[in-house]
Amino acid sequence: MTHSEITQAILKKQSFLCIGLDVDLEKIPPHLLAEEDPIFAFNKAIIDATHHLAVAYKPNTAFYESYGLKGWRSLERTIEYLNDKHPEIFTIADAKRGDIGNTSSRYAKAFFEHMGFDSVTVAPYMGRDSVEPFLAFENKHTILLALTSNGGAFDFQTKQVEDQALFQSVIKTAMTYDHSDRLMFVVGATKDEYLAQVRALVPHAFLLVPGVGAQGGDLAAVCRHGMNESVGLLVNSSRAIIYASQGHDFAQAAANAAQQMQQQMHQILTERGSR
Amino acid sequence: MTHSEITQAILKKQSFLCIGLDVDLEKIPPHLLAEEDPIFAFNKAIIDATHHLAVAYKPNTAFYESYGLKGWRSLERTIEYLNDKHPEIFTIADAKRGDIGNTSSRYAKAFFEHMGFDSVTVAPYMGRDSVEPFLAFENKHTILLALTSNGGAFDFQTKQVEDQALFQSVIKTAMTYDHSDRLMFVVGATKDEYLAQVRALVPHAFLLVPGVGAQGGDLAAVCRHGMNESVGLLVNSSRAIIYASQGHDFAQAAANAAQQMQQQMHQILTERGSR
Repeated sequence: MTHSEITQAILKKQSFLCIGLDVDLEKIPPHLLAEEDPIFAFNKAIIDATHHLAVAYKPNTAFYESYGLKGWRSLERTIEYLNDKHPEIFTIADAKRGDIGNTSSRYAKAFFEHMGFDSVTVAPYMGRDSVEPFLAFENKHTILLALTSNGGAFDFQTKQVEDQALFQSVIKTAMTYDHSDRLMFVVGATKDEYLAQVRALVPHAFLLVPGVGAQGGDLAAVCRHGMNESVGLLVNSSRAIIYASQGHDFAQAAANAAQQMQQQMHQILTERGSR
Repeated sequence: MTHSEITQAILKKQSFLCIGLDVDLEKIPPHLLAEEDPIFAFNKAIIDATHHLAVAYKPNTAFYESYGLKGWRSLERTIEYLNDKHPEIFTIADAKRGDIGNTSSRYAKAFFEHMGFDSVTVAPYMGRDSVEPFLAFENKHTILLALTSNGGAFDFQTKQVEDQALFQSVIKTAMTYDHSDRLMFVVGATKDEYLAQVRALVPHAFLLVPGVGAQGGDLAAVCRHGMNESVGLLVNSSRAIIYASQGHDFAQAAANAAQQMQQQMHQILTERGSR
């Protein structure tokens, strides 16, 4: 999927919402536990109810891995369902991988080829040869952690390296990697004061913004600081949408929560004339 | 497994060798491809032939993930086999995970509880709340990336942050985390000039040293700079051992390669009086 296809979907749906599929068997409606594959059943229902309101889905691999083989199978069924039924959706494997070159190639193969995700999140600590194997895939996107939404982000990411913060050094350095046009960056919504700094460094890149909703980020502030002329934002919400209800109405409740976000996004896009 | 149990195994086997199980179906002996589970068949043969020469095995999850469900199943069978047949072996999930708190908890659960690994490698970029969920597990070990063995390590890890290199800041900061006594650190053998700096910061921690063998690191130099009074090293070799032969003699060839390493280690331990 190209940048311009993502932008077209955003303008068409008037939404830059990404829904995080962080499925926890203790939080999904109990009646689904009787299903043969409760995780996939949950995801399918959420996707069916919200796909017209979101442009991207982001399963976090940790939740699936914690259920072992069964969980991995649910992840594969979920991405297969998304690719089959909703090929216009941008898919993100939130895996935060990264290793030496030959190993990163394996991860890239796992997520891009084997499972067919459009993108994967990657940790930058190991540098160029840990990131470029992901960037080598045409029409795929590598979403590099720049500034994350958690408290621990201040341990290293905001520390001064030479005359800039580490997250700025990460972005600038990564933009020198081969195929850096295939990079996107994770920038947490809980730190909207940094969003403008990131946007200044990468005026054209998509930013994936977690932390709106359960983690407390403010959508309007994110847009004020992070939008570019072709929107350039994917704002993720996970728990606030998928766990809006634990009852039989969970899918409808998720759709309602997603619609609230979409309506706020529509209003913001309208105000800036992106219809 | 406690530090002192690992040290006892090292002294008993006169080896601090860790064998990396980075299984690539294109590199294993072709005759194994007829097996129902070639990856597990390969690992089992390697483990059977080398377990008396090594104190640790380290499957790199990327290789397994790249084969999807089938690969994940081979990984589960491999760790199950190690835990059943060789409970004295220290097991490392080389997964390089790390995410926000509730998500890191999931990864910790996946590797420590579901699969029963003794340890997992973790990337430090997201800071305290991405690492502590791993450290919360008693009798488990979190092996934090400090200085990796690849070229990209110089992109960020050796950059000056305040008055020290980032990898030094990572180690010092991590040592303030809860249960930091459960930390070990990855320090690449290709940069033995840094090993002494790391050892000075963490005199008692185990260091996992990749990069000996195929990546060119020198064992004697690693030991000179990295050993502490209870050895404190796990030196990994992957390709040089497991791909020593692609013929029917592959397991014996792996054992021979492992034995060469073990003999060098035995000599080093003898010279410093650790028998």
